[in-house]
Amino acid sequence: MIKVGIVGGTGYTGVELLRLLAQHPEVELRAITSRGEAGTGVADMFPSLRGRVDLNFEDPAKADLAACDVVFFATPNGVAMQQAPALLERGVRVVDLAADFRISDIAEWEKWYGMRHACPEWVERAVYGLPEVNRAVIREARLVANPGCYPTAVQLGFMPLVEAGVVDRDHLVADAKSGVSGAGRKAETHILFSEASDNFKAYGVPGHRHLPEIRQGLARMAGQPVGLTFVPHLTPLIRGIHATLYARITKEADFQSLFASRYADEPFVDVLPPKSHPETRSVRSANVCRIAVHRPQDGDTLVVLSVIDNLVKGAAGQAVQNMNIMFGIEEKTGLWQLPVLP
Amino acid sequence: MIKVGIVGGTGYTGVELLRLLAQHPEVELRAITSRGEAGTGVADMFPSLRGRVDLNFEDPAKADLAACDVVFFATPNGVAMQQAPALLERGVRVVDLAADFRISDIAEWEKWYGMRHACPEWVERAVYGLPEVNRAVIREARLVANPGCYPTAVQLGFMPLVEAGVVDRDHLVADAKSGVSGAGRKAETHILFSEASDNFKAYGVPGHRHLPEIRQGLARMAGQPVGLTFVPHLTPLIRGIHATLYARITKEADFQSLFASRYADEPFVDVLPPKSHPETRSVRSANVCRIAVHRPQDGDTLVVLSVIDNLVKGAAGQAVQNMNIMFGIEEKTGLWQLPVLP
Amino acid sequence: MIKVGIVGGTGYTGVELLRLLAQHPEVELRAITSRGEAGTGVADMFPSLRGRVDLNFEDPAKADLAACDVVFFATPNGVAMQQAPALLERGVRVVDLAADFRISDIAEWEKWYGMRHACPEWVERAVYGLPEVNRAVIREARLVANPGCYPTAVQLGFMPLVEAGVVDRDHLVADAKSGVSGAGRKAETHILFSEASDNFKAYGVPGHRHLPEIRQGLARMAGQPVGLTFVPHLTPLIRGIHATLYARITKEADFQSLFASRYADEPFVDVLPPKSHPETRSVRSANVCRIAVHRPQDGDTLVVLSVIDNLVKGAAGQAVQNMNIMFGIEEKTGLWQLPVLP
Amino acid sequence: MIKVGIVGGTGYTGVELLRLLAQHPEVELRAITSRGEAGTGVADMFPSLRGRVDLNFEDPAKADLAACDVVFFATPNGVAMQQAPALLERGVRVVDLAADFRISDIAEWEKWYGMRHACPEWVERAVYGLPEVNRAVIREARLVANPGCYPTAVQLGFMPLVEAGVVDRDHLVADAKSGVSGAGRKAETHILFSEASDNFKAYGVPGHRHLPEIRQGLARMAGQPVGLTFVPHLTPLIRGIHATLYARITKEADFQSLFASRYADEPFVDVLPPKSHPETRSVRSANVCRIAVHRPQDGDTLVVLSVIDNLVKGAAGQAVQNMNIMFGIEEKTGLWQLPVLP
Repeated sequence: MIKVGIVGGTGYTGVELLRLLAQHPEVELRAITSRGEAGTGVADMFPSLRGRVDLNFEDPAKADLAACDVVFFATPNGVAMQQAPALLERGVRVVDLAADFRISDIAEWEKWYGMRHACPEWVERAVYGLPEVNRAVIREARLVANPGCYPTAVQLGFMPLVEAGVVDRDHLVADAKSGVSGAGRKAETHILFSEASDNFKAYGVPGHRHLPEIRQGLARMAGQPVGLTFVPHLTPLIRGIHATLYARITKEADFQSLFASRYADEPFVDVLPPKSHPETRSVRSANVCRIAVHRPQDGDTLVVLSVIDNLVKGAAGQAVQNMNIMFGIEEKTGLWQLPVLP
Repeated sequence: MIKVGIVGGTGYTGVELLRLLAQHPEVELRAITSRGEAGTGVADMFPSLRGRVDLNFEDPAKADLAACDVVFFATPNGVAMQQAPALLERGVRVVDLAADFRISDIAEWEKWYGMRHACPEWVERAVYGLPEVNRAVIREARLVANPGCYPTAVQLGFMPLVEAGVVDRDHLVADAKSGVSGAGRKAETHILFSEASDNFKAYGVPGHRHLPEIRQGLARMAGQPVGLTFVPHLTPLIRGIHATLYARITKEADFQSLFASRYADEPFVDVLPPKSHPETRSVRSANVCRIAVHRPQDGDTLVVLSVIDNLVKGAAGQAVQNMNIMFGIEEKTGLWQLPVLP
Repeated sequence: MIKVGIVGGTGYTGVELLRLLAQHPEVELRAITSRGEAGTGVADMFPSLRGRVDLNFEDPAKADLAACDVVFFATPNGVAMQQAPALLERGVRVVDLAADFRISDIAEWEKWYGMRHACPEWVERAVYGLPEVNRAVIREARLVANPGCYPTAVQLGFMPLVEAGVVDRDHLVADAKSGVSGAGRKAETHILFSEASDNFKAYGVPGHRHLPEIRQGLARMAGQPVGLTFVPHLTPLIRGIHATLYARITKEADFQSLFASRYADEPFVDVLPPKSHPETRSVRSANVCRIAVHRPQDGDTLVVLSVIDNLVKGAAGQAVQNMNIMFGIEEKTGLWQLPVLP
Repeated sequence: MIKVGIVGGTGYTGVELLRLLAQHPEVELRAITSRGEAGTGVADMFPSLRGRVDLNFEDPAKADLAACDVVFFATPNGVAMQQAPALLERGVRVVDLAADFRISDIAEWEKWYGMRHACPEWVERAVYGLPEVNRAVIREARLVANPGCYPTAVQLGFMPLVEAGVVDRDHLVADAKSGVSGAGRKAETHILFSEASDNFKAYGVPGHRHLPEIRQGLARMAGQPVGLTFVPHLTPLIRGIHATLYARITKEADFQSLFASRYADEPFVDVLPPKSHPETRSVRSANVCRIAVHRPQDGDTLVVLSVIDNLVKGAAGQAVQNMNIMFGIEEKTGLWQLPVLP
């Protein structure tokens, strides 16, 4: 059994980690911490876990995280970079679900996240946890930077095209729509039910933190910098990301086959038949990315549709997938539940 | 392995049965029928099942249902009473998720369902599949009448009080709210998104088909007829029933303990601590009923709050629970997934 | 023109007052205050008002509210009782949309609201602003206590029965469902979209602040104390209250006629034909209460269904209605917009 | 008073026309027809209109539409082209809310709409009813082809750029999201609440009927053909369209000023300040288009955000606006209600 700890379990990625890990046959949940909720029963805060998760939230200062094999950080940005190094040095492996170790360029990270980075040396050693790109290095990683939700959907959607060099990589467009849970569980006015329900809006058009992360990932695939316009939207659904991607064709290819063969061996990427329109609910609560490729009116522009559950393949599920890879167990373990539909 | 067939799998109880049975370790899905969709791949209609359920819908006339150990009818009312007897006579066990075998009084059934009953003899032999009441007889049943969604939530909520005879059984009130999936997947105007979203209404106040079913169940518990006012409401959520129950106290008791002890050994009924307010999402996609008991201002009226997922404990999950009991396997098998929250 | 001021305009009752008053042909909006948003343009906070409301939020200390004919308090409980008296003494008329002046029994108010009342003398002089009961005295009132949202829906639904003395007034049951906007615009976790959407729950079952207000109102109608069980529920819709009311018949009557004649001259109460089920959306954004009366299976229990828009007839609309009455203008002025459906 | 008739009033554009026209001070509603609902009271079908609209639906064969000054067709595509000519020949002016007269190229229309056009001669004489482009000719029009909802949002968003010739007109991208009411009130499975709620998907990516309409409109503005990729999405909100538009800059300009000056005199187009993100709810139930222009990271791609209420500026409201222009009355008459928010 893998001994697991969670730092910061009161948000949505935290409770989703708990849901997945509590049902994982190779995992023993050892500790979960929360500064604000120390002493509270996990199941008192999240009644969906009643009778199934007996842990209490512990004070981070008191929890024996060093006794764990792996610790997940489900904390706000800036926490893991403070606390993970001590654990890493004691041999604990770490998966950070926040952004602290995602961007290699420290100056770029500091610009977008508005703080000074506390341990650049670990950024270098961190592995970007997108298994479809980095499976081999994740296996050996001590520290995995779990990708953001938008970056997962957008990178998986563009990857076959960018790797193959068949589209104009200077003018990619990603129009992405996210469910409200992507904004977290912190009480803020704009994500109140009465604000976000029966409403739709773009946000962060001048610049969103996931932009540099996506650009970095696509650039690595391309072997060169890429140009990307990224527009996120807040959508009145709880879970789900739908990325609609636009790319100008520069080289003819059988685009459907390109996707099918790129993902042929990937257990968690599903390429749909031609003319398909994936729905976010078709991946609800499951660790899957479903993708469809279109070439409207046989023109020169490709449209890729890519959907994930932001809390699963976009966060907690992908974190567990990374853990499975790191510990050499079957990648699907604990991640094979069917989506809940309707 | 239990060989399972499903008749009528294109509705919401059908796809929910598929979700649960496809993940059930003791089940082999053999056939699923649909008159209208014969030939269509199940996963083409429900993409959430892609790669996991390979069956096609079959013409009911051609499917070899007699080779199954058990057949679930997820059909409209009036179908199972026509088709189940032939299977039953060949030794196949049957669970009917519709209402055909729920009401013992044939005349009463015919009045509420507006048709002539095709096989009253099997109504007599059918067992009402509420495990918390009938576990022992379900074990031996050849034909199980799976309870309705409202009747499950309301009966489980009133049961300890009615059995103990501590409330006025002539004037019970059940104010029940259901998610829209309870109305099925047939295209009708009043359940369109633009009609049912951001809207709330009661319906069927003059009389709803679940009323005689609930009254029959409560009368059996009471050993005498009961009086019940039942008002269902259509609520803008996909899944979930919330029953708010009102009963006048006729005899003092420790009501919290009454509930706790009545359900102490029930794996799928969760009695919450005093002062709790169960949320429908705390049971979303799981086979659980959560209940709280209140006595506001220490008055003479009890308020019981009872929540289920109408598609799981209110339909497909309870059907699988009944199957587990009928086949002598551990009751929780295939039904132990955690609720999906948020 | 009536010169109008608003204290505390950043919540939902505030913006709804602005929507109604900005379109009111007899009103001149003079000032709107907000401690936190002083200097911000009203239309910058609420873009729905762009080009139509030019006011900025003003510091309450600086706003010349004494120059107004009437001031609306759309503030949290406890503010109006501090600030209204000074205005009242200068001859300004006041409509308080909060609870400060609703409950005559000061001790009772202090118990439920958890604070000491600052001006009991004005409680005595305040008029409870339910026009269907108090129209004549509202006309002369200097201070109107605008009713709560639940109390409006519940009192209008019970009134004809309670006044006529035809039901058991000791055991009334009000099962009420509210849209989330009823909880206000303050950022709190439980009303986040990801918490309140696709979810349903009761709350405040042990005791809700609107209970004493409703009891007081019904007792006045009855001329004697009443017994009431009141259970509010949080419903995933933005606007709307649906009260489902239960009362035991003690005296036969033509209940439909009772309602029809009681409300025959009321412009804002609509009694539906027998067998009707009012929907909350049928009153969305409009100052109407729609009511239906049922006697299921000709039994001894009446069921009344009463719907309002909690922000209009349950708050801002009723406040404007009270203003119209106070200033002797046609009651429908500025309140005659049709509901928005779908 | 303008005598008005409506053909086909049982859909969402029909009831929205009724809401607007019943409150229009210069309109006398004379007749509304529906083949299926002849004899039914309008307010029985739409209780939001109770007490305010006394008409019954009439059999189209019997209604005296020729006595009207103007008739609105709120019918499915293909009806107006059959029935409007007879009215037009008798001097009745017609506004068609469907697509029959929108596309000048008959062959193109027949390809996209899959039927033979019944009166090409009236297509020539029809005026495309986008007032911001065609106000002068609308004034004289006998037949107005009211624009589609997507086409309104997309054309208004691209217009200043395309007219000024400052972007690459061969590679425009319109990523558009619509509320479910845009799909109409006909009962179809994919728009059921349980299908469309908590879900998001693209549709019609291979080709949507609004594509040729938008291309025609943009081409007229450009004075040359344009290239457009158009992807519509079904969004879980009742009303609202959000178009996110992408265009490559070919000529530098002050883009904010371009928009501001183009729409300076337009009463129903609101250009937001730089860095704004319009929300669909900010135009809910109102005849407004709000637009924001962005140039992310000062790159070479412009992003325009354009929102309307699909039933108002995208359908019934624009139709009334066209009527106002046709009859020479103040354009805002009956269209000046404030949006309903929240």
